[in-house]
Amino acid sequence: MARRILTGDRPTGPLHLGHYVGSLQNRVKLQNEYETYVLIADVQALTDNFEHPEKLEANIFEVALDYLAVGLDPAKVRIVVQSMVPELAELTIYFMNLVTVATLERNPTVKEEIKQRNFTKGVPVGFWSYPISQAADIAIFKADLVPVGEDQLPMIEQAREIVRRFNRLYGKVLIEPRAMLGAMARLPGTDGGAKMSKSIGNCIYLGDPPDVVRKRVMTMYTDPKRIHPTDPGTVEGNPVFTYHDVFNPDKAEVDELKARYRAGTVSDTEVKARLYRALNAFLEPIRAKREAYANRPDQVRQIILDGTRKGRELAQETIAQVRNAMSINYSFTHSRDRTMDRARNALSHVWKTVHEIMTVPSTGNIAICWFCGAIRSLRNGKVREFTVDGRNIREVTTRPIFVDDETSANIIGFDCAVPDSNIDLDYIESTIRGIPEAFYPSVD
Amino acid sequence: MARRILTGDRPTGPLHLGHYVGSLQNRVKLQNEYETYVLIADVQALTDNFEHPEKLEANIFEVALDYLAVGLDPAKVRIVVQSMVPELAELTIYFMNLVTVATLERNPTVKEEIKQRNFTKGVPVGFWSYPISQAADIAIFKADLVPVGEDQLPMIEQAREIVRRFNRLYGKVLIEPRAMLGAMARLPGTDGGAKMSKSIGNCIYLGDPPDVVRKRVMTMYTDPKRIHPTDPGTVEGNPVFTYHDVFNPDKAEVDELKARYRAGTVSDTEVKARLYRALNAFLEPIRAKREAYANRPDQVRQIILDGTRKGRELAQETIAQVRNAMSINYSFTHSRDRTMDRARNALSHVWKTVHEIMTVPSTGNIAICWFCGAIRSLRNGKVREFTVDGRNIREVTTRPIFVDDETSANIIGFDCAVPDSNIDLDYIESTIRGIPEAFYPSVD
Repeated sequence: MARRILTGDRPTGPLHLGHYVGSLQNRVKLQNEYETYVLIADVQALTDNFEHPEKLEANIFEVALDYLAVGLDPAKVRIVVQSMVPELAELTIYFMNLVTVATLERNPTVKEEIKQRNFTKGVPVGFWSYPISQAADIAIFKADLVPVGEDQLPMIEQAREIVRRFNRLYGKVLIEPRAMLGAMARLPGTDGGAKMSKSIGNCIYLGDPPDVVRKRVMTMYTDPKRIHPTDPGTVEGNPVFTYHDVFNPDKAEVDELKARYRAGTVSDTEVKARLYRALNAFLEPIRAKREAYANRPDQVRQIILDGTRKGRELAQETIAQVRNAMSINYSFTHSRDRTMDRARNALSHVWKTVHEIMTVPSTGNIAICWFCGAIRSLRNGKVREFTVDGRNIREVTTRPIFVDDETSANIIGFDCAVPDSNIDLDYIESTIRGIPEAFYPSVD
Repeated sequence: MARRILTGDRPTGPLHLGHYVGSLQNRVKLQNEYETYVLIADVQALTDNFEHPEKLEANIFEVALDYLAVGLDPAKVRIVVQSMVPELAELTIYFMNLVTVATLERNPTVKEEIKQRNFTKGVPVGFWSYPISQAADIAIFKADLVPVGEDQLPMIEQAREIVRRFNRLYGKVLIEPRAMLGAMARLPGTDGGAKMSKSIGNCIYLGDPPDVVRKRVMTMYTDPKRIHPTDPGTVEGNPVFTYHDVFNPDKAEVDELKARYRAGTVSDTEVKARLYRALNAFLEPIRAKREAYANRPDQVRQIILDGTRKGRELAQETIAQVRNAMSINYSFTHSRDRTMDRARNALSHVWKTVHEIMTVPSTGNIAICWFCGAIRSLRNGKVREFTVDGRNIREVTTRPIFVDDETSANIIGFDCAVPDSNIDLDYIESTIRGIPEAFYPSVD
């Protein structure tokens, strides 16, 4: 089975070249080798911006556009909106018991981020504890690998600790994730600052039109000691040349420009003009793809919805296993559990046969119609019908009427157009017992 | 409308006389005046006992038995299991942004409880932050009043602060709860300790059989300075007499015993024997009722399930309002939102009329059948049909096919036995437009 990756972003606005260099280009490569979940972490974005949730929806859309524009393939990648997977909140709550206050206080990444953010009204508990919810993000999707930069290693270590503790306490349900330290290159800002940052305004966005890109490039920070085109300039650490190295595929041109810059035989304007040309050539197809998707918002929304639905299905599967391991999948969630026990007893003889006959990879759950005794298999809310005397399985549209709310698992009972108060267990039992013995497995 | 109360217990085992005196008897009275939600807080119980979740299910059942035994009436009171309302986890996560680390650290109740518990491996974040999840418990059920003892006042104050902050930031959605300080009397333990505590083993449980009660009473702590029945004894602070005062309805007998005790003319054995008789008479009907319910476990489970289902419906309603207020009820949760927009436009003319005609207290959501154009109202997943030309409303069993997963709200589209790919908006629009003008509101 392909290894699984979890990555993602807080939806604070459209993505820029820094995101591309730092993570997006890597994800586009990884999507071919790994099953990839990309989480748009809107709940996490609230932890330091809860006063302004109103832009989240538009931002989620922008981020999704950027993903699609750079080449994340919705057929390969699942784009999941965090707030639409409430199981994450549940797992976070359980994880909160497995981390001590002292451990959280020691987390160097959070410490550093708190310093940067300078919370004037105090540090919100949500922000301070976000390593826990991030661990839930990773664990619920059972990610093996999380591509991160060095500065994020303590977060992964925290997630690993929580998972280990959970598995030790409750049973091996979760996967201990590993950090995937890779080429998490960092692109300087157009002002020469260490990185692009929306709040500083030193970014070039993936969707910026040519004139904006031109303006950004032409006003970029270069060697401050160089006054005239005839002054010898410094290439090293000069963001204009860093960008050339990253985005200009014509290495000969870049080498020539560097030589002339050092010798004082080229103007900053020319170096920048050529960078603009290269950058624009790089951005052109991304921009075009972005526009095309922006003109089909329904399709983008459907991609987000499909990814989120699939992500949520996986999350629901995991949370069901988690609750099971923690012994909080109470049997009385089934109001008729004793009745079910009897039905299960009656079923036990044919159980194995049913599994054998059904060619679905994992039948998951067997369900029985309370009214007619039909046996069906359920998986992720889909019902497959099993006919006892044939060996046919067909998809049926019947909906479960008696569903374990949390998991859609262990669904017993169907819509047979009969109110469930009319359920006649004896009738069902006799129906089950009427199943030909040929279908019973030879026990032992 | 009746005010609403939230109370509850952590399910750490069966309840004892201390619980009865401290809260249960009060709840039995209050259930007649207030809409009462009783939360069995199993998730909260995990915060200081996450290593042993395996007893929770049995404990929940025991607690429910005790509730029913003392006279909580399932027709009046909703018994809700916390872990079965995952919306509580979600609201807790949002609330975590509204409390600072410093505020939590100052909470005197939690400070005191942490001291008592003596966490040797460090304080779990879940325990440390439980005032936040408790605020979510109160807020999600929109409780006006929370009966508490003095020591719990800081918890209510924290909940009030969070609700105020939420309402100020996002809009007035939640209710600011008030503490209901009442006769939260405290019964001493049988060992004379300040209170009954399971871990100390100084309890008499509501379900204890007579011989156990007798043994507990006969070995109770009394005046330690009194050696012989002829020694004058102290009545004040003597737990045997405290129990007499609470449980012995024969005040003359109690007065006489006190006088003789002070005078040294009665043995401890006699005082205790009479206490046993009184206590047993008090416990007898409770015990009988408990046993009767214990013999009908299915009924008890059904009561828990019904209460929890109703509680969850309310919680889902609240969380939908919360998400709406926070602007995280993204429109793209509806894959056909543009289609919906068109349908909404078409509907806008009749919208008000529909509301007027429908006599349900709040129609909540209007839904339209994609196929036949029938307009229906939805509330808590129940569908009411609205016939345009009559003024009848009837319950219909039709199920929504296109549901907002999170909230069951804004359901648009029905199971009309037509696959939803066949939806014909123009047909629907023309149907809507065909509604007689008499039903249009006079605009402006």
